[in-house]
Amino acid sequence: MMPTAETTTLVIFGASGDLTHRKLVPALCSLNCKGRLPQDLNIVGVSRRPLSDDEFRASLYQGMQDGGEFVASPEQWGEFSRRIFYVAGDVGSAENLAPLQQRLAEVEGGPDVAANRLYYLALAPSLYEPAIRSLSQAKMVAEDGGWRRVVIEKPFGSDLTSAQKLNETVHSAFQEHQVFRIDHYLGKETVQNLMVFRFGNTIFEPIWNRNYIDHVQLTVAETVSVSERADYYDQAGVLRDMFQNHLLQLLTLVAMEPPAQFEADAMRNEKVKVLNAVRRISPEEAGCHTVHAQYNGYCDEEGVGDNSVTPTFAALRLYVDNWRWQGVPFYLRSGKALAEKATEIIIQFRRPPHMLFPIEEGKDIPANVLAICVQPDEGFHLEFQAKTPDAGLQMSPVDLEFHYQDAFDQAIPDSYERLLLDALNGDASLFIRSDEIEQSWGIIDPIIYGLASSDMPPPYEYEPGNWGPEQSNVFLGLDDRAWLRGCGEHKSGG
Amino acid sequence: MMPTAETTTLVIFGASGDLTHRKLVPALCSLNCKGRLPQDLNIVGVSRRPLSDDEFRASLYQGMQDGGEFVASPEQWGEFSRRIFYVAGDVGSAENLAPLQQRLAEVEGGPDVAANRLYYLALAPSLYEPAIRSLSQAKMVAEDGGWRRVVIEKPFGSDLTSAQKLNETVHSAFQEHQVFRIDHYLGKETVQNLMVFRFGNTIFEPIWNRNYIDHVQLTVAETVSVSERADYYDQAGVLRDMFQNHLLQLLTLVAMEPPAQFEADAMRNEKVKVLNAVRRISPEEAGCHTVHAQYNGYCDEEGVGDNSVTPTFAALRLYVDNWRWQGVPFYLRSGKALAEKATEIIIQFRRPPHMLFPIEEGKDIPANVLAICVQPDEGFHLEFQAKTPDAGLQMSPVDLEFHYQDAFDQAIPDSYERLLLDALNGDASLFIRSDEIEQSWGIIDPIIYGLASSDMPPPYEYEPGNWGPEQSNVFLGLDDRAWLRGCGEHKSGG
Repeated sequence: MMPTAETTTLVIFGASGDLTHRKLVPALCSLNCKGRLPQDLNIVGVSRRPLSDDEFRASLYQGMQDGGEFVASPEQWGEFSRRIFYVAGDVGSAENLAPLQQRLAEVEGGPDVAANRLYYLALAPSLYEPAIRSLSQAKMVAEDGGWRRVVIEKPFGSDLTSAQKLNETVHSAFQEHQVFRIDHYLGKETVQNLMVFRFGNTIFEPIWNRNYIDHVQLTVAETVSVSERADYYDQAGVLRDMFQNHLLQLLTLVAMEPPAQFEADAMRNEKVKVLNAVRRISPEEAGCHTVHAQYNGYCDEEGVGDNSVTPTFAALRLYVDNWRWQGVPFYLRSGKALAEKATEIIIQFRRPPHMLFPIEEGKDIPANVLAICVQPDEGFHLEFQAKTPDAGLQMSPVDLEFHYQDAFDQAIPDSYERLLLDALNGDASLFIRSDEIEQSWGIIDPIIYGLASSDMPPPYEYEPGNWGPEQSNVFLGLDDRAWLRGCGEHKSGG
Repeated sequence: MMPTAETTTLVIFGASGDLTHRKLVPALCSLNCKGRLPQDLNIVGVSRRPLSDDEFRASLYQGMQDGGEFVASPEQWGEFSRRIFYVAGDVGSAENLAPLQQRLAEVEGGPDVAANRLYYLALAPSLYEPAIRSLSQAKMVAEDGGWRRVVIEKPFGSDLTSAQKLNETVHSAFQEHQVFRIDHYLGKETVQNLMVFRFGNTIFEPIWNRNYIDHVQLTVAETVSVSERADYYDQAGVLRDMFQNHLLQLLTLVAMEPPAQFEADAMRNEKVKVLNAVRRISPEEAGCHTVHAQYNGYCDEEGVGDNSVTPTFAALRLYVDNWRWQGVPFYLRSGKALAEKATEIIIQFRRPPHMLFPIEEGKDIPANVLAICVQPDEGFHLEFQAKTPDAGLQMSPVDLEFHYQDAFDQAIPDSYERLLLDALNGDASLFIRSDEIEQSWGIIDPIIYGLASSDMPPPYEYEPGNWGPEQSNVFLGLDDRAWLRGCGEHKSGG
């Protein structure tokens, strides 16, 4: 049994940063307005800058108004901000955590009062390991009367080796059930809805396999260029930034077998099985299974090297070698400075095995397409063939549509609301387990190394505002397929 | 090879009747406006009343304006009505057809000019056999240079014996490929679309069977009472009027195996296989598998006997004993004076085999429902479970919708347009073959006899404006099921 105390403290390391101001605190404030936070939850912000509680609160309120996902009224803020405290501190060494420990004792009602603690590492990735070591050395991870949990933001490592090393450090201080590795995509409603869609309905699961599905497309497209995150990005590139985490997570959710329960380990066991079954691409093969490209002007961005060959766009073909998916390609693509901001999952079904209706010569009946739009317009589109009225037996593709916003009165909350609440409740279903992380890196690492090798031609170029380079279309064209856009306009997406 | 001449004559027997004025001629006129009629088509109306061509045309124009499915402008009518001629005649004997033959010779360009002829029997059913015999005796059915076809309206017989006898008479004059038995439901867009829906798409056929479908509901509901057709209706009753034809036709289209081509005999072979597989209900069993009822006030209608026990409502449970449908009940219902005018096909899928999401105790997740609305609002509704936003893993039923009128600019034409054009083109796919008719009567006849037997309690009563008697709900309730309404409001339909 997990030790559980009456009061809970959420300790945010990196409290002066953007994530805290724009995401975490607005999400917490929104949860408070909905009455969903634990009664006795306090929030203690930690960063190096010396600030009073009031200065910190004022800074958070300003940050929320400047671009938070949720903006509270002054009354709501007043009600919520009483829970917030601040202490200057440095997570770099255990000794430096003394002021935090003192402050926690005050907030929690005394040094010997048992309290649960959720440590949120909203820090630069290089600080994850020092922070965990410091917490451990300061004896702040022992579950003496209350639980201890840690939330770790992405990126979790920059390759397999560093991820394994980080996992080792994490496991030296915490047991796996105490660790909540965030991929905020998993907090998105549509992503969770994908589970309900697949397993809460009878009619989709029977056709969700190689017999009926021709291929799957996963797109995470951004319109923004790298701008302020340029120096991080130039080290990472699109494969680390998007593929290892978001895109592989979407792939696992599309491909996984039904778990016995919607419960953290049952879910994650199934996800790991998928990652395990993804056919590995060796560095030598990377060129055959990918297109990588860089947008024109990338090297002029501040923080980017003049001769950088970091890809800002990639398309990748993966296979899941198991009974369900044998031979079904999964095409993944992502990039910066693309034509639209859109995250979509496209399930392209096979054509009917036999066309019993007369069709014009040279014309093909389009196969069914299911498009799952994760953002911006959350919903489902099912394209199917219907008879064109008043026209013999001609067919036209039509669209069974479902838009989340039309169907429900509830606003769709930011993903951090769900994830913070789950972490506070100890539900890790929507967080990434250590073996998932390592499997993901095991898939992506050799591709990154292959693409970066001196034998490999440099990335293609593409103009900002396009859907990547023309070679991305050629890549699918060689498989007799084409990129699709499923949401909104049903336009071709190449 | 079919003999084919350059000119074609459509001969309408019963030309002064309602069907000709409200349906046939408006449909023909609409087809003419769309340029779809054969260039050299003439139309010759025949009935007993003496009329000049112009008087007949004026009467048709008036009829079209008084309630035709299509209303032409004076210019359109002028353009079309030049094709129309009239001759008084009596189909009761061959000699009486002499004036018609003379008129046809004039219209077709001479007694020896070859012409195709489509004979349309828009007559009282008692006149079908005399008319066919007369045509045969007058040697008007020989395909000497042009084809000869005959369209026969419903009802085709009033039981198995009379239908067999009528078929014998028909076959004494015509070969089966010359015979076009009309069920105008088959001319409806949504009914044809059902074929495209099932066989033009990959995703529905795999789940279209006993493994995934719990049961099927077919509803043809009318709000009108019997009114002017009372004396016919009082002889027929709802089972002859709706079940033997429309409802069994809908059942065959839902249940049939995919034919190799969308071609008359391939289609009809599959439909007959379904009818063949429908488990027969003996007169003794009829009470267990049906609910029959009569609306309050029916016996007061003009033309109805004071103590009539003719049912104006029936619900019927059928099974199709084949590999695909074993154990899946098909519930059919139809009635007069019901709450709404609606023709719907409801496919109720089974529940997911295992519910991996937490659900409230005592609460069931509704299973998927596909509703196919034939009229009035043609379209498809697919009800499925989606995650309620911002609420843990709660689910709500939502609706993927497709409405014909939203999706297509084309107006949905009246079913007679399609059927007349198909008959002129010799395509019998949407017409009923002799064996289909006889199989249908073979299913319905014993039920009618059983319900009319003196051992059977009289029909239940129901108030006009309801969905039939409460016993209809009890009937499904005993099977742990309930009538559903799929179109429009998703309201319970009992």
